[in-house]
Amino acid sequence: MLLCDVGNSRVKFYKGGVTQSMPVAEFMRYEPKERIFFISVNDSVKKKLKNPLFVDLAPHFELKTAYRGLGIDRIAACSAVSTGVVVDAGSAITVDLMFKSSHLGGFIMPGIGTLLKSFASIAPVLDVTLSTNIDLDPLPQKTVSAVNYGILKPIVLTIENIAGNNKIYFTGGDGAYLMRYFRNSIYEKDLIFKSMVSLIAKKGLA
Amino acid sequence: MLLCDVGNSRVKFYKGGVTQSMPVAEFMRYEPKERIFFISVNDSVKKKLKNPLFVDLAPHFELKTAYRGLGIDRIAACSAVSTGVVVDAGSAITVDLMFKSSHLGGFIMPGIGTLLKSFASIAPVLDVTLSTNIDLDPLPQKTVSAVNYGILKPIVLTIENIAGNNKIYFTGGDGAYLMRYFRNSIYEKDLIFKSMVSLIAKKGLA
Repeated sequence: MLLCDVGNSRVKFYKGGVTQSMPVAEFMRYEPKERIFFISVNDSVKKKLKNPLFVDLAPHFELKTAYRGLGIDRIAACSAVSTGVVVDAGSAITVDLMFKSSHLGGFIMPGIGTLLKSFASIAPVLDVTLSTNIDLDPLPQKTVSAVNYGILKPIVLTIENIAGNNKIYFTGGDGAYLMRYFRNSIYEKDLIFKSMVSLIAKKGLA
Repeated sequence: MLLCDVGNSRVKFYKGGVTQSMPVAEFMRYEPKERIFFISVNDSVKKKLKNPLFVDLAPHFELKTAYRGLGIDRIAACSAVSTGVVVDAGSAITVDLMFKSSHLGGFIMPGIGTLLKSFASIAPVLDVTLSTNIDLDPLPQKTVSAVNYGILKPIVLTIENIAGNNKIYFTGGDGAYLMRYFRNSIYEKDLIFKSMVSLIAKKGLA
């Protein structure tokens, strides 16, 4: 069974626990040879997904929420969690609060890579890389630390603020990096794909 | 007495309590007709400032700090505050902690406009504008609120975190907007210029 998660910059595939990905431009030339269950947040590939081998899972998800316009990737990730905070950390960081299988709301921050790029656009001296181990306790005493702190501390404080004592489920490319700044957290690399798999089983779609 | 603060994108002038500004490109064609006391964080205008009518105030500031490479604009702003947090909110937001005239450290976050641009670069649906009045208490229930919250909440929490009970001195283009999210805060539009004025008086440079 082949699954596909179409994002804004990349398209991820999942088969038997193995993931692969390609840029959206490459996906436009991709021709499916078998049935592919997909979700997509990318309107620019709508035509491509008209091929009947592509099966849209979006209509099958049933997430209780008052949020208007919740992205299908967030719906899928949240559907895998009953109570807790769901953090998908990629080019954007989406943060959603689940309680007893209801989605209570959420917010979006720019991702770590996006923030690094935005610092570089402000001034040459702010064009730095992210250190592998940043101590967020002492106040920074040089520019590289000041930028690293200015990227991570706001993200950490804002996720802590929404999480309280709830467990935090990280996914996405920067999820593993971010999770170590939180006590009650786990990293589920394939949270979205696992949610798609269980939806397909539950609805008998395969 | 004419003062000048050269930033990365704009150059600000100050005379008798009145400020004016121009883009850096326009400043490159500007010819001084009187003595101008300046500070500059912009290496690209170094040659321009060689004109002897330009008097660099940087060597005259004496800020106690262990921070290596603190920008002269931050040094000037911090020199105007004995104890408290100094926030200069422009294309970047610099945040510095002062205690009994010593600088204890600080950090840098992307500014509000920079963050809005970075959201727009991630996905078309995230290309939104900042609402004039954002309530940061309820969890967002739609995309515009989710982005607005994702811009402001991290900034507010991170400044609160460093400030504790200290007074917060805001300056910069977004300072007036930001200050209302804090109890113990004031907005000093010309904090940097006022610091330059008092330095000139103290050192008898005029």
